[in-house]
Amino acid sequence: SSDVKSKLKDAELLKTDCFVGGEWTGAESGETMPVYNPATNEVVANVPVGGAKETSRAISAAADAFPGWKAKTAKERGSILRKWYDLVVEASDDISSIMTAECGKPFAEAKAECVGGAGSIEWFAEEGRRIQGDVLETVNPSIRFLTTKSPVGVVGAITPWNFPMSMITRKVSPALAAGCTVVLKPAEVTPLTALSLAELGRRAGIPAGVLNIVVGDAPAIGDTLIASDTVRKIGFTGSTGVGKKLAAGAADTVKRVSLELGGNAPFIIFDDADVETAAQMTVSSAFRNAGQTCICANRIFVQEGIRSQFVEAITAVVNGLKLGSGFDEGVTMGPLISPKQRDRVHELVKEAVSKGAKPTTGGGIPNLGGKLDQGYFMQPTVLDNATLDMKVYKEEIFGPAMPIITFKQDKDAIKMANDTEYGLAAYFWTKDLARAFKAAEQLDYGMVGINEQAITSEIAPFGGIKHSGVGRENSKYGLEEFLQLKTLVMGVGYNKTL
Amino acid sequence: SSDVKSKLKDAELLKTDCFVGGEWTGAESGETMPVYNPATNEVVANVPVGGAKETSRAISAAADAFPGWKAKTAKERGSILRKWYDLVVEASDDISSIMTAECGKPFAEAKAECVGGAGSIEWFAEEGRRIQGDVLETVNPSIRFLTTKSPVGVVGAITPWNFPMSMITRKVSPALAAGCTVVLKPAEVTPLTALSLAELGRRAGIPAGVLNIVVGDAPAIGDTLIASDTVRKIGFTGSTGVGKKLAAGAADTVKRVSLELGGNAPFIIFDDADVETAAQMTVSSAFRNAGQTCICANRIFVQEGIRSQFVEAITAVVNGLKLGSGFDEGVTMGPLISPKQRDRVHELVKEAVSKGAKPTTGGGIPNLGGKLDQGYFMQPTVLDNATLDMKVYKEEIFGPAMPIITFKQDKDAIKMANDTEYGLAAYFWTKDLARAFKAAEQLDYGMVGINEQAITSEIAPFGGIKHSGVGRENSKYGLEEFLQLKTLVMGVGYNKTL
Amino acid sequence: SSDVKSKLKDAELLKTDCFVGGEWTGAESGETMPVYNPATNEVVANVPVGGAKETSRAISAAADAFPGWKAKTAKERGSILRKWYDLVVEASDDISSIMTAECGKPFAEAKAECVGGAGSIEWFAEEGRRIQGDVLETVNPSIRFLTTKSPVGVVGAITPWNFPMSMITRKVSPALAAGCTVVLKPAEVTPLTALSLAELGRRAGIPAGVLNIVVGDAPAIGDTLIASDTVRKIGFTGSTGVGKKLAAGAADTVKRVSLELGGNAPFIIFDDADVETAAQMTVSSAFRNAGQTCICANRIFVQEGIRSQFVEAITAVVNGLKLGSGFDEGVTMGPLISPKQRDRVHELVKEAVSKGAKPTTGGGIPNLGGKLDQGYFMQPTVLDNATLDMKVYKEEIFGPAMPIITFKQDKDAIKMANDTEYGLAAYFWTKDLARAFKAAEQLDYGMVGINEQAITSEIAPFGGIKHSGVGRENSKYGLEEFLQLKTLVMGVGYNKTL
Amino acid sequence: SSDVKSKLKDAELLKTDCFVGGEWTGAESGETMPVYNPATNEVVANVPVGGAKETSRAISAAADAFPGWKAKTAKERGSILRKWYDLVVEASDDISSIMTAECGKPFAEAKAECVGGAGSIEWFAEEGRRIQGDVLETVNPSIRFLTTKSPVGVVGAITPWNFPMSMITRKVSPALAAGCTVVLKPAEVTPLTALSLAELGRRAGIPAGVLNIVVGDAPAIGDTLIASDTVRKIGFTGSTGVGKKLAAGAADTVKRVSLELGGNAPFIIFDDADVETAAQMTVSSAFRNAGQTCICANRIFVQEGIRSQFVEAITAVVNGLKLGSGFDEGVTMGPLISPKQRDRVHELVKEAVSKGAKPTTGGGIPNLGGKLDQGYFMQPTVLDNATLDMKVYKEEIFGPAMPIITFKQDKDAIKMANDTEYGLAAYFWTKDLARAFKAAEQLDYGMVGINEQAITSEIAPFGGIKHSGVGRENSKYGLEEFLQLKTLVMGVGYNKTL
Repeated sequence: SSDVKSKLKDAELLKTDCFVGGEWTGAESGETMPVYNPATNEVVANVPVGGAKETSRAISAAADAFPGWKAKTAKERGSILRKWYDLVVEASDDISSIMTAECGKPFAEAKAECVGGAGSIEWFAEEGRRIQGDVLETVNPSIRFLTTKSPVGVVGAITPWNFPMSMITRKVSPALAAGCTVVLKPAEVTPLTALSLAELGRRAGIPAGVLNIVVGDAPAIGDTLIASDTVRKIGFTGSTGVGKKLAAGAADTVKRVSLELGGNAPFIIFDDADVETAAQMTVSSAFRNAGQTCICANRIFVQEGIRSQFVEAITAVVNGLKLGSGFDEGVTMGPLISPKQRDRVHELVKEAVSKGAKPTTGGGIPNLGGKLDQGYFMQPTVLDNATLDMKVYKEEIFGPAMPIITFKQDKDAIKMANDTEYGLAAYFWTKDLARAFKAAEQLDYGMVGINEQAITSEIAPFGGIKHSGVGRENSKYGLEEFLQLKTLVMGVGYNKTL
Repeated sequence: SSDVKSKLKDAELLKTDCFVGGEWTGAESGETMPVYNPATNEVVANVPVGGAKETSRAISAAADAFPGWKAKTAKERGSILRKWYDLVVEASDDISSIMTAECGKPFAEAKAECVGGAGSIEWFAEEGRRIQGDVLETVNPSIRFLTTKSPVGVVGAITPWNFPMSMITRKVSPALAAGCTVVLKPAEVTPLTALSLAELGRRAGIPAGVLNIVVGDAPAIGDTLIASDTVRKIGFTGSTGVGKKLAAGAADTVKRVSLELGGNAPFIIFDDADVETAAQMTVSSAFRNAGQTCICANRIFVQEGIRSQFVEAITAVVNGLKLGSGFDEGVTMGPLISPKQRDRVHELVKEAVSKGAKPTTGGGIPNLGGKLDQGYFMQPTVLDNATLDMKVYKEEIFGPAMPIITFKQDKDAIKMANDTEYGLAAYFWTKDLARAFKAAEQLDYGMVGINEQAITSEIAPFGGIKHSGVGRENSKYGLEEFLQLKTLVMGVGYNKTL
Repeated sequence: SSDVKSKLKDAELLKTDCFVGGEWTGAESGETMPVYNPATNEVVANVPVGGAKETSRAISAAADAFPGWKAKTAKERGSILRKWYDLVVEASDDISSIMTAECGKPFAEAKAECVGGAGSIEWFAEEGRRIQGDVLETVNPSIRFLTTKSPVGVVGAITPWNFPMSMITRKVSPALAAGCTVVLKPAEVTPLTALSLAELGRRAGIPAGVLNIVVGDAPAIGDTLIASDTVRKIGFTGSTGVGKKLAAGAADTVKRVSLELGGNAPFIIFDDADVETAAQMTVSSAFRNAGQTCICANRIFVQEGIRSQFVEAITAVVNGLKLGSGFDEGVTMGPLISPKQRDRVHELVKEAVSKGAKPTTGGGIPNLGGKLDQGYFMQPTVLDNATLDMKVYKEEIFGPAMPIITFKQDKDAIKMANDTEYGLAAYFWTKDLARAFKAAEQLDYGMVGINEQAITSEIAPFGGIKHSGVGRENSKYGLEEFLQLKTLVMGVGYNKTL
Repeated sequence: SSDVKSKLKDAELLKTDCFVGGEWTGAESGETMPVYNPATNEVVANVPVGGAKETSRAISAAADAFPGWKAKTAKERGSILRKWYDLVVEASDDISSIMTAECGKPFAEAKAECVGGAGSIEWFAEEGRRIQGDVLETVNPSIRFLTTKSPVGVVGAITPWNFPMSMITRKVSPALAAGCTVVLKPAEVTPLTALSLAELGRRAGIPAGVLNIVVGDAPAIGDTLIASDTVRKIGFTGSTGVGKKLAAGAADTVKRVSLELGGNAPFIIFDDADVETAAQMTVSSAFRNAGQTCICANRIFVQEGIRSQFVEAITAVVNGLKLGSGFDEGVTMGPLISPKQRDRVHELVKEAVSKGAKPTTGGGIPNLGGKLDQGYFMQPTVLDNATLDMKVYKEEIFGPAMPIITFKQDKDAIKMANDTEYGLAAYFWTKDLARAFKAAEQLDYGMVGINEQAITSEIAPFGGIKHSGVGRENSKYGLEEFLQLKTLVMGVGYNKTL
């Protein structure tokens, strides 16, 4: 870990323990596990193998801290969150270095994630003060109807490795703003970013027990969170498969669950699109974090007339990408998260090619030389002539490959776009007002980008439909997930003097 | 069934078939099953034993009808719902007769349910027009952020026998108002009220396939609804046990689920309460529908100083109740829904007495004479000296028995009130402003009645927390359950002329 | 008046008295004044010359009725309004006949106004139940913050002759839904439609004094309303000049005022517009009610490249219009409201022609023959080559003339469109998404039609900025105008037991 | 001014010029006028006598700055406001010193005002990002209805001397957050606090021209603001008389106006109140800022049974007050703002005594010795036996005197409380839930304190009804005053491919 540590202005941000009840603590067993740099396969740090025991302790700590945290005013909680935001912004270079080291994404992408992730903290610091109940128009002159909103209780947050920071702040910030306390399980391969956030939170004055982090044995931690009746809400981002299991498990304790699961995002380029911009943005979306985001362009639908122009343009853009370590100047794409993941994507590409897809660029595993040859890299790949029977069409690729499919009629594109069990993000390019509204309405997705691939913001609801999940993060809706409604029905008929 | 039919102004409202795709239809097997009058054990009618096949057909019908229904404007849908409301109000005597016949509740209670149930139809007819997305304040001058809300798709509604009408209209009306289509499984012992509603809906112009009803084999129907990937949302009211199973099953298709489950409602009578009114209202709550409601007073906590006065008052009120057939003049309490249910409640009472509880009235099974001796009646029972080790304290009684527990300090009452896995409705009586707010806030329940037991209204969110469920019915929140959010992110930076 | 009466199914709807405190009543002086048919100059009916005395009595009646009406639940008020809506829909043929007779607009236009006007009643019948206060997130654990909304009190409504019905229902329905009582002064030249509405309201169960109408001497009535300290809110639609005077007068009693004043609506036809549709819709807007609406197309800006095509198209559409009595089959344009108004418009046209405008059709006063020669008709007129120095550019035309101005750059059109003190409605035609958003944003108007001229609906806020007014009618915002906010700050710190 | 300057940590905060277009500038005439310390009659500083010319320049500067400020995102504006908030909090000792010097209030009160005033800046910094339009449920499948909200334009803010800071931040912060630019006229006797705020705003990055301040000749500045057609909104806090004139004047340019005018606040002590606490809080309210607040207790209504107890308690509390310079340790009440004001209050007291009121303490002008004998002090005065014919009952006292009136029935108190043309703030003390709700509802006031006198917070709407004003400050409603609504009606029927 000396390697990363040396990059940090504040070396104290590289924490390698669980954080429970305000204390940095190892696993009871004393066991640890390595965290690797996917660009080089080097060990970045060793962290405890937390499990059921550590999770139970964390849940207890969160439960103990709940009444006190809930009793604070939203303004008080907001001030602490605001302080956390300030510290995170200040430390964003360090957080980004830790993130690049354990996740592999280019430093600039890590910085961008820091901005967005901090944005969620700031947003919910403010939003918590705006929680609001209703005074309803009564149906009976002797009764007053009010509603109030209160925190759901202890929250379990389970987050993925592809956005080691922002997936956390989207869940933890609204939970804390609402008055909930949290037990967080970050992805086992990217725990360090999470731990740096906890350290900054501690410095900002988040009281002991309000935010707890258990790293280590993912199934053991997850199962303990799910089984606990104390945990009243699970916020999960990850694969559809795991999400379904969590949701099923949560039923027995009637937990509330929000799930941000997989996607299979269509990109539709209508024939009146600005082709150059569309090509640029398609690549930005498809190969962000080496294609490892749930809202990545997964299937590119190009309208007949502009097809060759678009393929040419996009190939040129992809050819301009530079692979390498996220710390190296000019690098625009890093490795995949693991050899397994890299090989899976490689197989998908080979299957597509075997069925007739033509790579206009990429398609294989690069030789980058030096330490990077131990990294888990894959060439960014454009697959022309993709067809509906290929796995790259049917599955979430989660890697740097993009299949291109041609369509004739507008309706054909919509139909193919909706031909998936997923419903997270869809995108299209057109300049036509009516086409824009109608296509947006007909796409069965939770988010629709129109002439734009950067659809994420703290102000905008993020989330999917169908098998891509339930619930929304960020925006005013993201807070509702952590609140429960109470209806007050007050009889005042006994007073006869007024 | 001639008996009920003869009470109806419009005999055509007594339907005895499934309603699928706009057609009245039997089970494919041709099998039927009887519906009993719980006051006399007589058969009211025979209905088909629908199952997986009928449910699958109904789901298909709903899926086919969905695009057309969704494409109507909310105003058009609202007009049809309004017409339905008008017809239901007009037919309320007949609906009430059918309800009393199959469910046993006094006719006046059935009428009251009709008013409330129709109220939900009217409310959502109006509310559908008020669905509203957002135009958000952008974070980027080249982007416009909008959100829209659209219907989730085909909805499965599963409803209980204790409110054969209103539990349906709370789910079906918002679903329809939102643009969803519905497959409804009413309780197998009270299908007839549901079918009369469908007939009125048909007359009101609800298009074929938009509302479907399958009656019969409850597990087969429920399992089919849960397993279907076409069904995107389940609205369930019923037992906590069944609800948990449904929620677990729904996870595999990432369905949205709202659950209104069991309760164990505390009634706290603080020492500054108006004792007479509190006693009256406690009985109204505890013994409505013979104690078979999920928000019934289940545990009565009386503050020391007013205990004897309260027990005396409440005993007097209970002694004034009259058991009998819901059709008979002056009857204020009917039978339980089944012999099994009656015997279960009787056992609970006996267990309490064996542990020291003293019935001040009731306690056994009455002899009412004539046909009623075949009915499933139980005496309304007040159990003084109840203690925390009794089942009547720990379990949902769902019958006409109420345990009375004494407390000293305010905090003791709150603590005992919260000492349950349930969190549906709680009630208390006090005239003190601060006590009212603080007690309401400290009670971990979804609904709190203060000096009032009639907490249900179309305007007020209904639903629980903890193991009493997730989601809300009625009110503006009740519509949200059937809507999904879409975020539109529109790039407009390409235009440089403005 | 026999002439109109004979057209009515329900002759009792032709009322010719003031309506005060639930009674039909003449002026104290016994004086009456005639109401003319502008198509023939015949007298339709004679109505009382109400003035200060009648208005004071009406204000008193409204004040007396206020506490009782306010004390009803919103649901009760909504039911009465709903009944009113039903009766108005039922009587819409009769109301339309009365309207055509006194206002001159084609019967089909009158019917359309009836639909829209009734729509406001229905909307606010529903909306009143949705009035909602807030339970705020406290800043002090010992304090609870609530807000509530209550009716402002007695409302004075002053309405114009160009929409004798819908301008009334937009004001009276929300006022009544909010719990206010009303004194209405309809335009002196079109009182009969208003009186028919009052009669239907009476039948619907609006209690005596809740809705009062005074017809007659406009300045005397208006001054009395404005001077009264009992009247807490004025809702006015009319000329900018009168509106300013009313607002100034209202200051002395700190009344709330909403004003819907004049407009000078630009219609911009961008070069990617669908020219035929744009031409059709421009005529629909410009010559609805013979050009006498505040949101009429007043200035047509056509982008250079499509100018000749557009002028040709629009001239053809205008040539297809048929002038005549609103009762006659096929008539699509009626007379102006008065000879004075007709002459004013004629002068505007002549001034434009003298400065170089070229009429491609119309331009003068038609000879229609028979009784119609006594009517106040003007030919629908298209003025090509209009320039910025003409009065038709600078003033609100309020008659059937439309000046056409050519522009080159998008920005030029926006600049000219905003070059007026008015800010009511603007319109433009384009298919481009970005142009649509940016032009809409840059137009300083309260309402913007994009590819659409029919911008009025009960769901959509109606109102202007700049010298076109303050406040909004219809929509959820239209109710706010009649509500006042109350902040409740409740100290609950004295209770120490919870 | 050396005296105040010496108290400041940052002497640069004592500005003595107008602030226009980002520049500190004198009057064109070169004229200046003194600002006095009301505790000693010493000159604190000399400031320019700005008038029509300076105001016109400020309006131009604001108009020039408007497009740029509006074009920033709400997030950008919010960041600048946040920075301003941070600087104000940091400088709060200095601001408070300036405030005490020119306004006379005790330093601790000045500090409290600083906290509250800064709170408005923070609140609106956040609130601006939450401005939100609507996507409405269409009534026509070919049309989309949206609403947006945009800043009204240049705002004129006119503020009083009794809260030299918080009355400014309540207006300026929401205006700036909304995207408006501002010309502020602070009270002529307390300009220095305003100028210090401007200096901090400048440092925080508020661009030149966005916030302008003109000090000097009040009528000339006010008239210019009112007459200008560029100024689209006036936010005023001050006397009812001036407010009415401003509103009347604003009508000619159809400005939007919000007015926070005078009050005549009733304090009702019901017989179940906590008398000691009520007495404490009554004094806190009545004699804050020496009784010079618009929400001061003006009339004390005590229920018969607790009258003598209450009078005794309140007299004791008042006797504990200490008069003197706001800078002196332990001082709890300062001088009035001017000799004229002091004499007016003295006259009111004398008139009351002449009609039978009995001062239980105070009643005259104190001899405080030293420099303070030149100050404008008045003894805090309790007037027992007050009656309804006294001016202290009928008028806003605005000084340290409180008349006490006894009542029998609850309804009597409500009736007397409402017996005034004012409707700003009312207060009452009771522990009864129903009495609390019903009294709150029956009091015709914009704000109601229940067991609490500290009713002001950035989260709570502040404002009155009747002759106390229109509009609300602070809270989410406070931003609406600076926004105008735009309805977008988009025709999308031309597209037939989707």
